[in-house]
Amino acid sequence: MSTVTTPFRSPKWMWGTINQESTMNETIRTILERRSIRAYKPDQLDETSIGQIVEAGRHAPSAMNQQSWHFTVIRDRTLLEALEIACKKVFLESDIEALREVAGRPDFSVFYHAPVLFIVTGDTGALAPQYDCTLAMENMMLAAASLGISSCWMHSIMMLYSTEKGKAVFSDLGIAFPERYEPFAAAVFGYSAISLPDAAPRKEGDVTFIG
Amino acid sequence: MSTVTTPFRSPKWMWGTINQESTMNETIRTILERRSIRAYKPDQLDETSIGQIVEAGRHAPSAMNQQSWHFTVIRDRTLLEALEIACKKVFLESDIEALREVAGRPDFSVFYHAPVLFIVTGDTGALAPQYDCTLAMENMMLAAASLGISSCWMHSIMMLYSTEKGKAVFSDLGIAFPERYEPFAAAVFGYSAISLPDAAPRKEGDVTFIG
Repeated sequence: MSTVTTPFRSPKWMWGTINQESTMNETIRTILERRSIRAYKPDQLDETSIGQIVEAGRHAPSAMNQQSWHFTVIRDRTLLEALEIACKKVFLESDIEALREVAGRPDFSVFYHAPVLFIVTGDTGALAPQYDCTLAMENMMLAAASLGISSCWMHSIMMLYSTEKGKAVFSDLGIAFPERYEPFAAAVFGYSAISLPDAAPRKEGDVTFIG
Repeated sequence: MSTVTTPFRSPKWMWGTINQESTMNETIRTILERRSIRAYKPDQLDETSIGQIVEAGRHAPSAMNQQSWHFTVIRDRTLLEALEIACKKVFLESDIEALREVAGRPDFSVFYHAPVLFIVTGDTGALAPQYDCTLAMENMMLAAASLGISSCWMHSIMMLYSTEKGKAVFSDLGIAFPERYEPFAAAVFGYSAISLPDAAPRKEGDVTFIG
């Protein structure tokens, strides 16, 4: 048995080959080229695209096949703006200085003007709702990317829901989740208003091979 | 604003169209056709495939781009067998009757004889290590599926690590994770020994549209 922790791009792994068009399949290309985007065009997604994205989420693996997820798709602009104001308030009151700082900027937009927000709520009585919902959301972000649609994870939704005041915001706005369900994953989706940037550099030395 | 919770396959959504070859792209097909497989051929994955799978994981989104993951790839059969025995013991001592029952079967194999186990550990001091590691693992399972390689999530690894006795098993076997890192996602990978089954039926009525 040999244990090796290695900077990943070892020649041993013939790694460079997958960056050549000829050997990288479309799914892997989609995975490597997906980006978190923070500037969106106002164009709404069509229903077929939304349908394909949700169906991708519904086909994630789940603990004991419980499919403990529920998908809430919000396209109503007035509602998105109201939710955004509530999220911004949570940021401004946060203990985390970086969040307060970013939320205080005049041009700050929580949802980056994206036309649609997907919230995946999970059954808090299930075996592993956070895992189920997160796996579903990654499927959704990749399905979107394959259709030329960008996305950005929205932890602000979980932050908002984690306080009593925040929970009240959802019900005041008429956003109801199934009984016992809570948000475990959320992301905005839309067409990027910018060219997709390069990936941020990946961490080195993050792989250990045993055997 | 209108709120509609709907059985997903509403005619309104023109849903059937994506089941036609002509309109479903390769990435979405991979997502819909990925299955959790519980019977593997002994054939080892080649290094290029393992490399592509890990690289897919490294390109997941992560909270504040912390990339709080570390990938441990275990191919050593003796080590896999020793880990399997330890996991089986955890199952047999579990409070959950279904786990005790399944682990008591003479033909029970925790890893289903798969040739490789990937453990994604996360930095417990990071913002959201469970999210980061789970998103990475879904990328890995989909990259694998696109290469004709099957996988199955292994919650037993997290169960094993959650006890002091279980932690000792890893160190006794010489499996070391980076300081402060703990397993948040794990899965076995390999070539399926069976034909891929149909997806289990998806839950109905699990989508709410607002606006």
